[in-house]
Amino acid sequence: MAKKIHNIEGVQLGTASSHTRYGDKEDSLLITLPKTAQVSCKFTGNKLKAAPVQLAINNLSSYSSGVKAFLINAGNANAATGQQGMKNVKSYCKAIASELNLKEENVIPFSTGVIGEALPVNNYLSAFLEANTKLSPKNWVKAANAILTTDTRPKIISKQITIGKQTFSITGFAKGSGMIRPDFATLLSFVFIDAKINRRSLNKMHAEALDCSFNAITVDGDTSPNDSSALVANGNEAKLVETNSKAEKKIAQCVKGIFKELAELLIEDAEGATKKIKISVSKANNLQQAKSVAFTVAESPLVKTAMFGSDANWGRILSAVGRDRTIKTIENVQIKVNDVPLVKKGNIDPKYSEAKASRAMKKKEILIQIILNTGKTEFEVLTSDLSEDYVLINSDYRS
Amino acid sequence: MAKKIHNIEGVQLGTASSHTRYGDKEDSLLITLPKTAQVSCKFTGNKLKAAPVQLAINNLSSYSSGVKAFLINAGNANAATGQQGMKNVKSYCKAIASELNLKEENVIPFSTGVIGEALPVNNYLSAFLEANTKLSPKNWVKAANAILTTDTRPKIISKQITIGKQTFSITGFAKGSGMIRPDFATLLSFVFIDAKINRRSLNKMHAEALDCSFNAITVDGDTSPNDSSALVANGNEAKLVETNSKAEKKIAQCVKGIFKELAELLIEDAEGATKKIKISVSKANNLQQAKSVAFTVAESPLVKTAMFGSDANWGRILSAVGRDRTIKTIENVQIKVNDVPLVKKGNIDPKYSEAKASRAMKKKEILIQIILNTGKTEFEVLTSDLSEDYVLINSDYRS
Repeated sequence: MAKKIHNIEGVQLGTASSHTRYGDKEDSLLITLPKTAQVSCKFTGNKLKAAPVQLAINNLSSYSSGVKAFLINAGNANAATGQQGMKNVKSYCKAIASELNLKEENVIPFSTGVIGEALPVNNYLSAFLEANTKLSPKNWVKAANAILTTDTRPKIISKQITIGKQTFSITGFAKGSGMIRPDFATLLSFVFIDAKINRRSLNKMHAEALDCSFNAITVDGDTSPNDSSALVANGNEAKLVETNSKAEKKIAQCVKGIFKELAELLIEDAEGATKKIKISVSKANNLQQAKSVAFTVAESPLVKTAMFGSDANWGRILSAVGRDRTIKTIENVQIKVNDVPLVKKGNIDPKYSEAKASRAMKKKEILIQIILNTGKTEFEVLTSDLSEDYVLINSDYRS
Repeated sequence: MAKKIHNIEGVQLGTASSHTRYGDKEDSLLITLPKTAQVSCKFTGNKLKAAPVQLAINNLSSYSSGVKAFLINAGNANAATGQQGMKNVKSYCKAIASELNLKEENVIPFSTGVIGEALPVNNYLSAFLEANTKLSPKNWVKAANAILTTDTRPKIISKQITIGKQTFSITGFAKGSGMIRPDFATLLSFVFIDAKINRRSLNKMHAEALDCSFNAITVDGDTSPNDSSALVANGNEAKLVETNSKAEKKIAQCVKGIFKELAELLIEDAEGATKKIKISVSKANNLQQAKSVAFTVAESPLVKTAMFGSDANWGRILSAVGRDRTIKTIENVQIKVNDVPLVKKGNIDPKYSEAKASRAMKKKEILIQIILNTGKTEFEVLTSDLSEDYVLINSDYRS
């Protein structure tokens, strides 16, 4: 948090408390965007879509240009709340649109929190109205804090890149620590670019950044009805980025980096996590196989508990690989942990050393390297271990 | 255990200790079968197959009639042990075949325990030789105890059915408490029928019994390299069962019942389990969808931890249904727990009562009823909750 956070011209943030689930903690965030902004949003793949997600999709499909606003609340997901849930989100969006003198479809709602409880709509509306009086271009840390639920700390990444004579700022923040899996789980993420980029390029940039970040992490294989990711270009005329230009590629690369770093921050703060584990599957037949094996290992409770116990239990890793449906034989499989050899040709590596393996496992960052030796494709997944605290958090808290 | 256990004519059991992983506890079991016996064996779907499984498959593909013997050891899985592992299992099978005056292919090995450690072959051979001196038709409880690893208690089911003037005895025992999922996970199961049944009928009976028992339970979604299930008919001439006869159907039904009860005993003793949870998916489009939804919910860590915490968190159940790939919409989904309504038409049921739901969740046996209302097919899966003890057991013990 000590690093410099770069403001994004025209983007303003305001926070306030709804005085509901979290007492007086600020849990409501209003973000206003300049008239020129382009917005790309991607939402959960779960068929259980929260009311705000349904409304956001609807508004985005029809939104005309003009100043836009994001309304984000933590504490109540407004998911599986039926017609009343839709009424509620529409009602506060309409009130804020009126207050900001916007068309209704230019206000995009995001929610995170408990599923299936009625949203205390007046409380959140009051909070958003108050947030509107506190708008500032500098409120990044407050904003990153306002969207948290079971997270233990805010996640912000901010970078600048210089291309030719111009310097571009990109700043983003995210939340999420359980229910994390591809289709980017209970995740809310907002990234802003100080540049003018057309919507098609922005969408492409967004999709590519998601594939190697929020779609390549898993905590427990569960996804949420509220997952949302927004990538915004403020439309700064002075910083026009041409389609297919070198500048665009460099910015896309930088955006990818920010998404990846935000994803890493999520995993580091995953519910009950004591370790950050990267599962790298290489020399696979194709991307589908590499992904399938990586997620099978990443979501194996036996692998995850062994990681928590710092046990170099390569048998469980090999066994998880062996049960993956895309695997025909384990004869060529090679496994290493932090470069220490464990398995070769589907059996214990002749160079295996319990002492070395054990030392490798005690680290906080674990790289499990699974080399299938049947093809050329690789894929990496980031995950966390499965601890007693994960069970405690999730058996105790209706979230 | 107080119930009567029926011996199976010609089947003898002997146990002894290898004095290895479990100290002096008996961990080695020899079962001898009469010359007339027919055997049906099914093994793990995991591509990582333990050496004894590979040898058993090989022997069964070529076995000629004659007395058969099962050699079962607990404590060492002899999996991922390479050529030496195969040498080891062959060497003790050969020695026992010679001792019993059998062809080598008539001895079938089964192992359960740690993956990837060299099997102390001389210790287990000594134990099997000792077990051979202690053979008795009555040793069912000793046998059921000898095959345990992390299980806390033996699992035996014994029944008799009378068809016409004849009474048929069927007795079986099993082990397994983690790594349990379809393809019948770290499971060893041995069921014996006092009847003459041909091999084809026996195989069919076996497959059908597996589908509604060991292939319909899951603890953690992990499978093992050693899963094996044996169904044996002793070939008693006095109790001939004709193919496609009514008697055969009744016996098949009874065998199914025994497999189901053994499966329930496994779930009741699952690692760290505090509850037995049945997930019933009904009115699905087809069997594939019913199975997929049932296993997605049964293996959701967020559902399993909510069950452990006795939290009627229907949002997590609905969300797990919503992320299943076979589900197109959740609009028709209805959910109940022990007949208490939770969800109707994809939203909270108007009849929902927190007090009633909470009372229902406190029970030790939970029935989660998921009615998809789009078709006619149903499927049930049995599972356990996810507790702190599951994490403790699996982060602590290299099994």
